[in-house]
Amino acid sequence: MTLLDPAIGDPAHADRLDAADPLAPFRDEFVIDDPTLLYLDGNSLGRLPRATDARLRSFISHEWGGELVRGWDRWIDLPLEIGDRLAATVLGAGPGEVVASDSTTVNLYKLASAALKARPGRRVVVTDRDNFPTDRYVLEGVAAAVGGEVRWVVADAVEGPQTGDIAPALDADVALVSLSLVNYRSAAIADMAAIARAAHDAGALVLWDLSHAVGAMPIDLEATEADLAVGCTYKYMNAGPGAPAFLYVRRALQRELRNPIQGWFGQRDQFAMGQGYEPVPGIGSWLTGTPTVMGLEAIDEGVRLIGEAGLERIRAKSVALTEHAIGLYDAWLAPLGFTLGSPREGSRRGAHIAVRREDAARVCAQLIVAGVVTDFREPDSIRLGLSPLTTRFRDVHDGLARLRELAA
Amino acid sequence: MTLLDPAIGDPAHADRLDAADPLAPFRDEFVIDDPTLLYLDGNSLGRLPRATDARLRSFISHEWGGELVRGWDRWIDLPLEIGDRLAATVLGAGPGEVVASDSTTVNLYKLASAALKARPGRRVVVTDRDNFPTDRYVLEGVAAAVGGEVRWVVADAVEGPQTGDIAPALDADVALVSLSLVNYRSAAIADMAAIARAAHDAGALVLWDLSHAVGAMPIDLEATEADLAVGCTYKYMNAGPGAPAFLYVRRALQRELRNPIQGWFGQRDQFAMGQGYEPVPGIGSWLTGTPTVMGLEAIDEGVRLIGEAGLERIRAKSVALTEHAIGLYDAWLAPLGFTLGSPREGSRRGAHIAVRREDAARVCAQLIVAGVVTDFREPDSIRLGLSPLTTRFRDVHDGLARLRELAA
Repeated sequence: MTLLDPAIGDPAHADRLDAADPLAPFRDEFVIDDPTLLYLDGNSLGRLPRATDARLRSFISHEWGGELVRGWDRWIDLPLEIGDRLAATVLGAGPGEVVASDSTTVNLYKLASAALKARPGRRVVVTDRDNFPTDRYVLEGVAAAVGGEVRWVVADAVEGPQTGDIAPALDADVALVSLSLVNYRSAAIADMAAIARAAHDAGALVLWDLSHAVGAMPIDLEATEADLAVGCTYKYMNAGPGAPAFLYVRRALQRELRNPIQGWFGQRDQFAMGQGYEPVPGIGSWLTGTPTVMGLEAIDEGVRLIGEAGLERIRAKSVALTEHAIGLYDAWLAPLGFTLGSPREGSRRGAHIAVRREDAARVCAQLIVAGVVTDFREPDSIRLGLSPLTTRFRDVHDGLARLRELAA
Repeated sequence: MTLLDPAIGDPAHADRLDAADPLAPFRDEFVIDDPTLLYLDGNSLGRLPRATDARLRSFISHEWGGELVRGWDRWIDLPLEIGDRLAATVLGAGPGEVVASDSTTVNLYKLASAALKARPGRRVVVTDRDNFPTDRYVLEGVAAAVGGEVRWVVADAVEGPQTGDIAPALDADVALVSLSLVNYRSAAIADMAAIARAAHDAGALVLWDLSHAVGAMPIDLEATEADLAVGCTYKYMNAGPGAPAFLYVRRALQRELRNPIQGWFGQRDQFAMGQGYEPVPGIGSWLTGTPTVMGLEAIDEGVRLIGEAGLERIRAKSVALTEHAIGLYDAWLAPLGFTLGSPREGSRRGAHIAVRREDAARVCAQLIVAGVVTDFREPDSIRLGLSPLTTRFRDVHDGLARLRELAA
């Protein structure tokens, strides 16, 4: 337990933090339908940017409704264009290394299947027991499909898998190490560079799920020597429910790995509609079927907003928001029997925190009735997502004050 | 060549057909931005229904923007609910046999992979050389993945694959026959029941791509003993560019076939987020990742409109529209050296027609400049899509009149 800040618990203190917040004006860029709602779940579904609202309305009426099929002259390039913007603005990747396509689940499947094919003789995938469910299920499936298996790492539920947890699981049978950068429950951050080094030393590839990180913290896929990555866009990228996910393949691997789902959007000279699948060279070969154009438009606005705010400033505010929440946890919730489900060290923590108590499910349901939206996560976590562009320090204060009342 | 109707070529005749058309009022249900545009490409991208325009605007602002993550209480059921509506209204399938999910390409991949797994010892997939490109590419990939191959049927380019073309390709090595119900270029209709019988007699499963048929003609998956089917929703279902596709698995096969993409949306008790993939029983196991909610909303409006118009009336108008187009072809285009790229027999033809000449690509480009939107299809087809709810007989007349001028 840290020493309590004497100002913690004073709403005026939270207001002062908001007044000093250089990113505070960004909240006005979002649709805030109900200003009394305390929305602490932007890590599950991000808020709607005003610009996206306007752009999608215009898209529907004028592009789909007006341009009709001629719109494809522009839309056809969006998966790669948006991919390049994601790469440059939020992923630390180069042009031609990222596409926006399909869902995180389908992208994980494509990349993990391809990684296993590219490492014949190796049939083990290493991941951790606390990885996000769809990652675990997909990896089980792709490993079983080649007669292999998942080698499960059991790490500390709060601190997440450390390099020291992963390294002992690596040997000459391992084709792929697949982990989340930020754990969906605890927000523990994995050490991308160290884990990639360990994987590479063992001759394995590394595949990151960036869903709970992208748009909330700087990511440098290049510098951390990531081989493969996926992530969703409906959390901190604010692209809406079911917007396309993204997928990254390091340029040096693009000749070696092959998309198992051979769709027409990955075909060279697509509209020649010729005989025989012949993938386009490069990242475009990871496209499959017709992309969700509205979702791509929404990602574009999300990337623009994140770029304007700047990931360094976003991360600084994010750490301050979660510090503030942990301060309130120490003052108000620890005495009520809660434990902290997230790392205390700011540099090891993403943009959400979990507080744990046996009756978390019940409390979480009561919170929604009381106008505070959080998430319950099995078995005992209340997850508070503090999306940096739309969450005020005062929201954190008020939300945790209501949580204290309900849990007392 | 049929005997020319003396009225053919008279615009007043087309106007009379429109005046007598019971479905004519449905055109007012769609956004018609530019009334001078002759849009003969609704088989590539269907027009925007007014109700969809309103519903998506409301969805964006009030559900995403206002309900935020709480919207998932309702959205989570949409893939199965919309699937059931598609089943009942346009597919002739039962409840629990259809889901809306992913793209046609990804759905083809899931079903074809599962079919090959379900017929061990058989590693051949039969399809035709004129099947839609993504179908051919996907099938090549899934066959190769099990060490098998595609056995290609070469059928008449206009009349499409007949049962007599398919049957000789069937033997004890064939796991799957996969065809399009309506050919994307010629509009030739395959005999679903006869081909399914031939496939079943050989011990194979049959998988239909319904993309160029669904919403434009009655389909009865149950009566024709289809095993598996996929299709898109952005053509005659008018659900917008990149709206989710659908997928059908006959109930009797649901225990036997297994989705290779093990995602969390297919997991039993999804939000328990438990260890080990255990698919939900039934059609829900074919879901993968987070669905595109806006697209699902749009499909719902599309299904409603088709249901109101009625598929029998839609089909009757569709045959009349293509007959009218063929009458004009006979009178105007055949003398200019065009040939007909679609079946002359109405019962064998879907809702579009192709007219062929060596310079089709150039003519097609000139048509767009002249305000007539059609599609060029390699090597020599101009494809005229006559979407029954939004195309007038007069549009067909005017469009072909401009084509005649340009091609003379």
